[in-house]
Amino acid sequence: MSNPNKLKVGFYGLGRMGRGMARRIFGDGHEIIVYDVVRAQTEEFAAAGVKVASTIGEASAGRDVVVTMLPDDAVLNGVVLDSGGIRASMPAGGIHLAMGTHGIATIRALAAAHAETKQVLVAAPVLGRPDLAATGQLGIVAAGPPEAVTQCEPLFKVMGRQTLEAGPIPESALAIKLANNFLLGCAIEAMAEAFSLVRKYGVAPEVLYHVMTEGLFSAPAYRVYGKIIVDESYDKPGFTTLLGLKDFNLIMAAADMGRIPLPSGNAFRDRLLSAIAHGEGEKDWAVVAREQASTCGLD
Amino acid sequence: MSNPNKLKVGFYGLGRMGRGMARRIFGDGHEIIVYDVVRAQTEEFAAAGVKVASTIGEASAGRDVVVTMLPDDAVLNGVVLDSGGIRASMPAGGIHLAMGTHGIATIRALAAAHAETKQVLVAAPVLGRPDLAATGQLGIVAAGPPEAVTQCEPLFKVMGRQTLEAGPIPESALAIKLANNFLLGCAIEAMAEAFSLVRKYGVAPEVLYHVMTEGLFSAPAYRVYGKIIVDESYDKPGFTTLLGLKDFNLIMAAADMGRIPLPSGNAFRDRLLSAIAHGEGEKDWAVVAREQASTCGLD
Amino acid sequence: MSNPNKLKVGFYGLGRMGRGMARRIFGDGHEIIVYDVVRAQTEEFAAAGVKVASTIGEASAGRDVVVTMLPDDAVLNGVVLDSGGIRASMPAGGIHLAMGTHGIATIRALAAAHAETKQVLVAAPVLGRPDLAATGQLGIVAAGPPEAVTQCEPLFKVMGRQTLEAGPIPESALAIKLANNFLLGCAIEAMAEAFSLVRKYGVAPEVLYHVMTEGLFSAPAYRVYGKIIVDESYDKPGFTTLLGLKDFNLIMAAADMGRIPLPSGNAFRDRLLSAIAHGEGEKDWAVVAREQASTCGLD
Amino acid sequence: MSNPNKLKVGFYGLGRMGRGMARRIFGDGHEIIVYDVVRAQTEEFAAAGVKVASTIGEASAGRDVVVTMLPDDAVLNGVVLDSGGIRASMPAGGIHLAMGTHGIATIRALAAAHAETKQVLVAAPVLGRPDLAATGQLGIVAAGPPEAVTQCEPLFKVMGRQTLEAGPIPESALAIKLANNFLLGCAIEAMAEAFSLVRKYGVAPEVLYHVMTEGLFSAPAYRVYGKIIVDESYDKPGFTTLLGLKDFNLIMAAADMGRIPLPSGNAFRDRLLSAIAHGEGEKDWAVVAREQASTCGLD
Repeated sequence: MSNPNKLKVGFYGLGRMGRGMARRIFGDGHEIIVYDVVRAQTEEFAAAGVKVASTIGEASAGRDVVVTMLPDDAVLNGVVLDSGGIRASMPAGGIHLAMGTHGIATIRALAAAHAETKQVLVAAPVLGRPDLAATGQLGIVAAGPPEAVTQCEPLFKVMGRQTLEAGPIPESALAIKLANNFLLGCAIEAMAEAFSLVRKYGVAPEVLYHVMTEGLFSAPAYRVYGKIIVDESYDKPGFTTLLGLKDFNLIMAAADMGRIPLPSGNAFRDRLLSAIAHGEGEKDWAVVAREQASTCGLD
Repeated sequence: MSNPNKLKVGFYGLGRMGRGMARRIFGDGHEIIVYDVVRAQTEEFAAAGVKVASTIGEASAGRDVVVTMLPDDAVLNGVVLDSGGIRASMPAGGIHLAMGTHGIATIRALAAAHAETKQVLVAAPVLGRPDLAATGQLGIVAAGPPEAVTQCEPLFKVMGRQTLEAGPIPESALAIKLANNFLLGCAIEAMAEAFSLVRKYGVAPEVLYHVMTEGLFSAPAYRVYGKIIVDESYDKPGFTTLLGLKDFNLIMAAADMGRIPLPSGNAFRDRLLSAIAHGEGEKDWAVVAREQASTCGLD
Repeated sequence: MSNPNKLKVGFYGLGRMGRGMARRIFGDGHEIIVYDVVRAQTEEFAAAGVKVASTIGEASAGRDVVVTMLPDDAVLNGVVLDSGGIRASMPAGGIHLAMGTHGIATIRALAAAHAETKQVLVAAPVLGRPDLAATGQLGIVAAGPPEAVTQCEPLFKVMGRQTLEAGPIPESALAIKLANNFLLGCAIEAMAEAFSLVRKYGVAPEVLYHVMTEGLFSAPAYRVYGKIIVDESYDKPGFTTLLGLKDFNLIMAAADMGRIPLPSGNAFRDRLLSAIAHGEGEKDWAVVAREQASTCGLD
Repeated sequence: MSNPNKLKVGFYGLGRMGRGMARRIFGDGHEIIVYDVVRAQTEEFAAAGVKVASTIGEASAGRDVVVTMLPDDAVLNGVVLDSGGIRASMPAGGIHLAMGTHGIATIRALAAAHAETKQVLVAAPVLGRPDLAATGQLGIVAAGPPEAVTQCEPLFKVMGRQTLEAGPIPESALAIKLANNFLLGCAIEAMAEAFSLVRKYGVAPEVLYHVMTEGLFSAPAYRVYGKIIVDESYDKPGFTTLLGLKDFNLIMAAADMGRIPLPSGNAFRDRLLSAIAHGEGEKDWAVVAREQASTCGLD
């Protein structure tokens, strides 16, 4: 477990994803100190002999890299900018490695804020679910100053199956992550519409699923979400409608700032709003297929 | 080349797709007679010893199955319903196997018309390009009265890699074919939007292509059309904008008749209209990505 | 009732609108002969001493002008083009004055067909409801060869409050009529959305109605349809959802032929489809407000 | 100029609108003290003998009512919540009368913040341009605790032609104001689409303008903005594209919070984004008609 290139790492955010990522870093012999506001989430780390900080400042002081894996922009902003936060506590030259899905404007502003204090922001959002986080099989899209990205590589290697370098501007990594989620949402919406179309003409959804996944659409996005739609198994969400809306709001904010009309995105976002209005916020976001069916008078 | 289960087949429509399909049927020993209004397209068949009819009536008389592979509904309607057409010439019990992509309403009406004259319509639109037609590797979606579909199986076997039976109502097969094209158009539109999003934040299109096709979207639809968009290689169309509009108009007509709102489909259809308005009708339909980029002020 | 400039007029189509229009022409002393396939609709005319034709041919023979006020393109096409129809029966130099709401492509084709037989098509769709037809207060938009339009002026004067000449191409008049209906549908959709917005924040619909109609939107479109929405009085339709869809399909066909993306139109058309899917086809088309409310979880 | 019911008024925000409103209040004999961060904007008031505060705190201390007429939420939030701001300086029982166009969430949060300090927020956004502000002819939509609204009535009377009371919850007034702007944006978009439709069929825009404004759409929204579109007079903006986007972003945020799909609003917002991407941010927002025309290949 010792590691000659070991880094001094602070890690904030031990949720379903962060937990697996932090364990991988620890397992690779880096000198890690973890933190979470929810004390219970730190217990298994303490039990495993991992150092647990009692403040974010403590988790940042003297670190080479502070990883954040946080659920939203408000939390991230506070954690970085508050007195006693990462910016105030991490040494000059330190890297803040932001691995959550955040808004372009937030990442842009935090990159500037860190630069003022001679620190560096690297944005490295991840593709994949908790099981892939636990086994170090995430996809990672990293962007930031090249030397800083290079310094983080030992961490990427242990958390991910593959890391894509997306250039020197941290926000570029977020643009890719958001575009990927955008494509997924749009594919779900298109399936929702296509399934309603065939059902109206006497076709069982399974048949379209078969044509689709055996043909032009033989990819996880269609296999996974097509299956959920066919089975109407919306109650065990992989990704909820409310989380989907959060991501699509980040996408719409990026579209606003960049002056980018996104008509397909609007169609899906409207559908998410409908689903939430109908009490389906905690269902799998593929439940939009039920919304679509209902606008057609199906069911 | 003799075939104990050989069928007496008429075949109308020797375009880029039909040509390969007719050759496969001939090659399998069925007794085929071909026809096309464009005389030049029949020549290679005559040269190969295939019987060439001089009217559609001649190609229909005494046949077990008359295959049509025609470009649009107007032509198909004429060919079936005109005096001297398939309906007037094919014997009672004969099967009209319509393999083109047609509108739901047309197929519904023709099925009724054939029924009146004790004939059967089987709809069996195909998935795949001319190269797959030539090698018998098409996907086929067949729907119609079960015994009639069964009778056509020897033909399906020689034209297709796989045949999916979609139920007893001919129009169901078209619903699936249209839904498949619908999904494809929507995926192209979503890519168009996603590429414009990342470009605005400093990301080279190749990078998103990589993330997409190595991840959730590792399927032909995204690989083929994503590549065309990244390379801006719109000048060698696999499928043109104008043909795309024809298909989306069939889809919209099906949506109208079935009372099915299709917001994503509208976004793509509008984009096709823009591309055609800008003189891109004969370009590959992925050229909608250039339209999207232009609404964002890119290029 | 004698009229020095009296015209020999044939009139086909004695529905709710046509009835009032024909009566006005008769009342002004023109020599009119009326026709309708529904015999009952001709009775009141016979009783009033109006000549009733027993075929469209009879209503066309020897006429200066044949007026049609018909509900759709299929009927109009038959009436003009069938053997024994207007084209075969009206003399050379005769004017077919088409006053229904028809598709651009239909009007274009019929103008060409009449030209071949040295007849002239003038398109003159009307704005207004049956009560205005009965009192000669319609708005009329006329387009066609200028001398022919001039010849029809005595008729326009007696049927309408105001006639707008829209140029020498008959289809221009339809483009205006369709654009007017388009604006109306879009205004209804916008109201539907706006009312749902304020309701979600505790505002009674009446209050928005007041702000709207006392301010920027003090026009019949908003007063009439806003009131229907506020009162939810969808059961006494001025114009039904199904008729609305018919018009929007004509609009979409015009958009298709002209290569004109119409995103607002798509939103309203989708809403009409939803309403019809939910069994509201015979309700006032403002019922789309209920559809919108229901996508928001209101009611 | 003395007034028996005179109020002690603070007024912050002497821009094009606020200036006229403050002058009306002063002219009616209320004891007003004005403030603006842009010192130049206070000069004419000083010259006219109006008291000018040098801080917002000074403009709030001891006041019955503090009026704000501010351009955006960020400024308003600061002005209310900062130490030395309205909340810290206005006495208990004081009324903050917020007359700018703000977001629902902001108004909701500020109402709660004022309540904590025993102050009251009344929201009263205005309808109308600077010329109406100068002459006291604004439309005012007021919402908040009834007694507080009543206390503000002398001010409403002098600033507005008409005040509509929209209930006890301050955010209701904003919902109405945003809905009104929403209807206007949607009407502009619908006109943009309708004009492109008729132009494609040989109709001069003036002709549709005439039909529209003489008929169902004889209202300021269509007369004013239809004229701008017909004349293409986008260079002397009444309301700019960028301001339009700001309002539509407030609308979209309200839609998000209320779970309200707004498909027509999306179409217009996308159009605003396109116009801004093309460098038209400072043009009149009716310039979206040029964007629409350009997607059709017109001009």
